[in-house]
Amino acid sequence: MTAEEVKVQSLSLNGATNEEDVVTPWSVESKNDTGVDYEKLIQRFGSSKIDDELLLRFEKITSKKPHQFLRRGIFFSHRDMHTVLNLYEQGKPFYLYTGRGPSSESMHMGHLVPFLFCKWLQDVFNVPLVIQLTDDEKAIWKNLKLEDAIKMSYNNAKDIIACGFNLDKTFIFSDLEHIGNNPAFYQNMIRIQRSVTFNQVKGIFGFGDSDPVGKISFPPTQAAPAFSSSFPFIFKNAKVQCLIPCAIDQDPYFRMSRDVAPKLGFPKPALLHSSFFPALQGSKTKMSASDSNTAIFLTDTAKQIKNKVNKHAFSGGQATVEEHRQLGGNCDIDISYQWLRFFLEDDEKLEQIRKGYSSGEILTGELKKHLIDILQPMVLAHQERRSKITDDIVKQFMVPRDLGFRTNK
Amino acid sequence: MTAEEVKVQSLSLNGATNEEDVVTPWSVESKNDTGVDYEKLIQRFGSSKIDDELLLRFEKITSKKPHQFLRRGIFFSHRDMHTVLNLYEQGKPFYLYTGRGPSSESMHMGHLVPFLFCKWLQDVFNVPLVIQLTDDEKAIWKNLKLEDAIKMSYNNAKDIIACGFNLDKTFIFSDLEHIGNNPAFYQNMIRIQRSVTFNQVKGIFGFGDSDPVGKISFPPTQAAPAFSSSFPFIFKNAKVQCLIPCAIDQDPYFRMSRDVAPKLGFPKPALLHSSFFPALQGSKTKMSASDSNTAIFLTDTAKQIKNKVNKHAFSGGQATVEEHRQLGGNCDIDISYQWLRFFLEDDEKLEQIRKGYSSGEILTGELKKHLIDILQPMVLAHQERRSKITDDIVKQFMVPRDLGFRTNK
Repeated sequence: MTAEEVKVQSLSLNGATNEEDVVTPWSVESKNDTGVDYEKLIQRFGSSKIDDELLLRFEKITSKKPHQFLRRGIFFSHRDMHTVLNLYEQGKPFYLYTGRGPSSESMHMGHLVPFLFCKWLQDVFNVPLVIQLTDDEKAIWKNLKLEDAIKMSYNNAKDIIACGFNLDKTFIFSDLEHIGNNPAFYQNMIRIQRSVTFNQVKGIFGFGDSDPVGKISFPPTQAAPAFSSSFPFIFKNAKVQCLIPCAIDQDPYFRMSRDVAPKLGFPKPALLHSSFFPALQGSKTKMSASDSNTAIFLTDTAKQIKNKVNKHAFSGGQATVEEHRQLGGNCDIDISYQWLRFFLEDDEKLEQIRKGYSSGEILTGELKKHLIDILQPMVLAHQERRSKITDDIVKQFMVPRDLGFRTNK
Repeated sequence: MTAEEVKVQSLSLNGATNEEDVVTPWSVESKNDTGVDYEKLIQRFGSSKIDDELLLRFEKITSKKPHQFLRRGIFFSHRDMHTVLNLYEQGKPFYLYTGRGPSSESMHMGHLVPFLFCKWLQDVFNVPLVIQLTDDEKAIWKNLKLEDAIKMSYNNAKDIIACGFNLDKTFIFSDLEHIGNNPAFYQNMIRIQRSVTFNQVKGIFGFGDSDPVGKISFPPTQAAPAFSSSFPFIFKNAKVQCLIPCAIDQDPYFRMSRDVAPKLGFPKPALLHSSFFPALQGSKTKMSASDSNTAIFLTDTAKQIKNKVNKHAFSGGQATVEEHRQLGGNCDIDISYQWLRFFLEDDEKLEQIRKGYSSGEILTGELKKHLIDILQPMVLAHQERRSKITDDIVKQFMVPRDLGFRTNK
């Protein structure tokens, strides 16, 4: 191994010891009941904590109250966010990039987190956003028919668009369709592919010798959108700073992107990392689209939502009402409370609920009712917006086009 | 390793023992003066010899005398050529595919061999031909600026077109430009990439853990044109048999292509393998574009040709005229004679020269004169044709377009 490979491997996810949480793009497993230890993850990944100082600066510069995901530490870690704020202060441009590995099943509430956040960032900063649908990744990992993987992209795109993205500022693309329509993208893939060795991707992603070549060469495909030259129709020839909001499990891709950025003559992409949205059954693992009882899907009816929360949401309450009144509930492990942290905007009301549940004043059934009252209208409104997203609208978002980007605002 | 990986590895080039010739796409080294032992290579690669029976059948079916490259065993090995002849007999279609890793230096006589042969095959069979210029490969292996690699493709395309290809039947493409303009091509790359493991490409191509991901994922890019669905604008939805004329060192790519063909639901590409065009200094290695005295370049003047042949062409003659008259020359190692085998069409005249040189009747200087008299007008004519190939003509060959292909002739 070269010195450089060793350097990259030292950032390895697979360096997790037996007592440490496993966090990779394909597997998340925590060793304790309250879920992944994010403080430790920041240390292991070498990222920075989103602290009060950053939030104050954010609010000062944007004149906007930071989003609840920021206020409540749901997005908890960053790389180079100060650089992005510097640019914004100086009136210089940046752009947002996020993505999704599309699924045939309906998307669930957890999948909305990065998109809701991107939508908010897009509104606050008024910047272009590119959304990559990695249907090639899905076709490789799940051995799907490529046509079916593309269909999944289109299907998921409807849910994404229903989050309210601005057509004038948002480009959504399917890898399987778009890469073959964008020579600059393919050329950046080659530039990245030649800058990363197998040893490096092995260290970062844990690939082995029996893995197909397609898996080994995929990380550069997810890295390419972090460089503005991959989208000449949006950014012309400008070298534009990229900001990537994503769940922390996607960080390996972007550590690699940051590592190769200087070789491509580009700024390192900045990052905002979210913690994981917990499954109804508890924080130990990521929510899974394959077990319909672990998640609230965007297709669930009001009745299903109510039943799932009441039946499956892991409770931090006590065994009996008497004990609960006496000892209070544990919000740290209570999923209804945890989900309210994501979706209940009102800080004051959330704090009342936290106090009430912790003191035993609020019972588990009442807490669940609070969550149900938030989720039902939220999902219904999503369904209503989604029903209006026609195939034609999806195509409009997917057309490579000028998004009105100018180097000087 | 899986059983399948073992099967592919058993075809490994790297299985060459210490006494065997090394033949890979990046290195050719023979252990004896007359060059690579092609009979042994056929056994090691598991291909078939182009024998008299095949040549007779070829002549019978096409009513054409086989090309001198076939008559003289320069194309010496094949895979499934009888399948291709069966199709032709039945009036069913096939297509030709060959390629080149473009170079900044001028192309040399050896580079012409596959193209001269393809031109002849195209005329005989009246079939479409696709020519891949692997500028992505060159950019990865030689760490070139991508823009420079693309320029090399356009430059080499002029020499290729000057071989006389029919614009109506020939599509030439640069990987770096075309793959990003052809979703079907990229999609086939993904289909191939997911069907081959790192263990397999390691076995076939000798890649190691310190190689960049770009090298590891390149073989599927060279395999993709062997499947007609990579070119929907030519072949529509037809699954068309592919025939690949190439130097034997390229066989590893196409063994891999043949291995994955069933997984893609396609016929295995057929192959015609050529021996190596020897360097002026002798048969031990492939001619190199980096040492200008090892080759006659397509840009050489008549005087340079004369001087190079006289000065550098390895001679099979004896030390003195007297000895030569007495013992005769050795055509097997004499480069002037070997080159005449490639380019002197007249069988009778070639046989006269062979007999004359072997018996000592023809002296080395006279033999060299024969070669010079063939090369000078051949190179001059090439230069004249090439000077007429404008950038616009190159672009016409490179436009993805309908080549008038029909499933039934």
